[in-house]
Amino acid sequence: MSLKILFSARPGLWDDYEAPFRAALDEAGIVAELGPGVGPPETVDYIVYAPNPDLRDFAPYTRLKAVLSLWAGVETIAGNETLTAPLTRMADPGLKEGMTEWVMGHVLHHHLNIGHALARQSGTWEPYVPPLARERRVAVLGLGELGGAVARALAALGFDVSGWSRRPREIEGVRCVSGPDGLTEALAGAHFVICLLPGTPKTESIVDTAALGSTAPGAVLINPGRGTLIDDDAVIEALDAGQLGHAVLDVFRTEPLPETHPFWAHTGITVTPHVASETRPTTAARFIAENIRRSEDGKALLALVDRASGY
Amino acid sequence: MSLKILFSARPGLWDDYEAPFRAALDEAGIVAELGPGVGPPETVDYIVYAPNPDLRDFAPYTRLKAVLSLWAGVETIAGNETLTAPLTRMADPGLKEGMTEWVMGHVLHHHLNIGHALARQSGTWEPYVPPLARERRVAVLGLGELGGAVARALAALGFDVSGWSRRPREIEGVRCVSGPDGLTEALAGAHFVICLLPGTPKTESIVDTAALGSTAPGAVLINPGRGTLIDDDAVIEALDAGQLGHAVLDVFRTEPLPETHPFWAHTGITVTPHVASETRPTTAARFIAENIRRSEDGKALLALVDRASGY
Repeated sequence: MSLKILFSARPGLWDDYEAPFRAALDEAGIVAELGPGVGPPETVDYIVYAPNPDLRDFAPYTRLKAVLSLWAGVETIAGNETLTAPLTRMADPGLKEGMTEWVMGHVLHHHLNIGHALARQSGTWEPYVPPLARERRVAVLGLGELGGAVARALAALGFDVSGWSRRPREIEGVRCVSGPDGLTEALAGAHFVICLLPGTPKTESIVDTAALGSTAPGAVLINPGRGTLIDDDAVIEALDAGQLGHAVLDVFRTEPLPETHPFWAHTGITVTPHVASETRPTTAARFIAENIRRSEDGKALLALVDRASGY
Repeated sequence: MSLKILFSARPGLWDDYEAPFRAALDEAGIVAELGPGVGPPETVDYIVYAPNPDLRDFAPYTRLKAVLSLWAGVETIAGNETLTAPLTRMADPGLKEGMTEWVMGHVLHHHLNIGHALARQSGTWEPYVPPLARERRVAVLGLGELGGAVARALAALGFDVSGWSRRPREIEGVRCVSGPDGLTEALAGAHFVICLLPGTPKTESIVDTAALGSTAPGAVLINPGRGTLIDDDAVIEALDAGQLGHAVLDVFRTEPLPETHPFWAHTGITVTPHVASETRPTTAARFIAENIRRSEDGKALLALVDRASGY
């Protein structure tokens, strides 16, 4: 029997995803009609979804078995009350790997002070030997799929890693704490702070003046999570006061980051254009095909969103 | 009974090492006179050694039980025929950790193309999403203490790692090859080449035009090993021809690298001032104290140099 799978995303994405999806469905033994238009809403079995203005009302999709998000962050859809079918996040291994590599690269860039060397290429031999990773404390905020992978990789390289999450977690080699008091504990004396929490009302501006006051002076803030996690003004004030030494920001409240935003001009801030991790079509399509297979076989879905907590 | 341990190094090092050494010897239960002057040569039991012009003739040290090098590289002393006592290299865990962090940081800097983002801080939102580490081949030349640790760490992060060494080695997760044919095999299609071979007559200019011709076009060469490993002119030619995309060089045939050397001015080269890894006094002193303890107890020395091969 053939399924109907609606691909609902901003225009252009379909071109990147069509071939990988057809291959992944084939591999999973799923026969389906698939595309941006597959017939009337009441005939659709699954929706592969990325935020777009055309699909806001899920009520007409009466036959819907699940919505499968292409992205890891689901804050724009998790609260949608017209959606009653199960919602899954993206948990593509490529996403986790790419994020780990990006965070590790930016942490090491500042740990090693590569900028010091780059600024001395006109003939200045001025050795700067950094401390070892084991002498640097890193706080990872958020220990989900991505934060957990990042915390593990940093600890494996020798960094002294604390991790904070809403719910208690255990990760070997990482000092895990949770709850409001745990946040201060995780941040205490941190030389690096990595923000990988989901964007929810509870995490809105969680990195504020108070949080930034707990780190080691001159700490480096790295935010590849969500723009809403940080209080923009507090970050600039902490940089100007020297409490933060640098900030590497990949996500913003408005994207693309407007040219007039003070983050661009600040010498203590590196802006990267939301590239810390990208869902890769091949691995993402395989993940979604596997979830459709599971749904058809009556098995539990992977990366199911808890609609109450929003992630 | 009290031992006599001569500390023979360039002036200044003693200030950094005296306290860590006294602490480490105490910890190891070794009673010793220790310093740059401990009495006549024929009374000296051990020499802690870093290259210096004052000690070239070891013949008068008739009682010598071992020479313990402060550095990992021993090419300036391994061939000294006046030395008949055992010679050990430094195998300080801090050295291995520091090297791994430095290599990983520079590999990731180019893997992620962090320079692309740094050059766009005046308001240009221009996403560049790199491939995943698993899509990048890395060749690590030299699989000793340092090369082995670096190869393991890169493989753990997901890079596709080949390793080459003179003698056959096995490292889990790394494609190990050896011998002259193995070198071409290890370099074939490599996006990154890491040089961590010892400096010996056999490795002199091993990274030459032929070797550089085997890599993927636009590869990044990283040399934190020895300046003699690379043919300087061949590296510049490969950069100018686009066969190399960039070179990060930390060690040179003459150090400090002369201001007039073409490496400084070349935009495709990042010069770092021999900082990839530094022996750390605390961990180095502990390693040497352990070797003295072993020698006194009649046990095999750690990191013993094979004088015939020169490392």
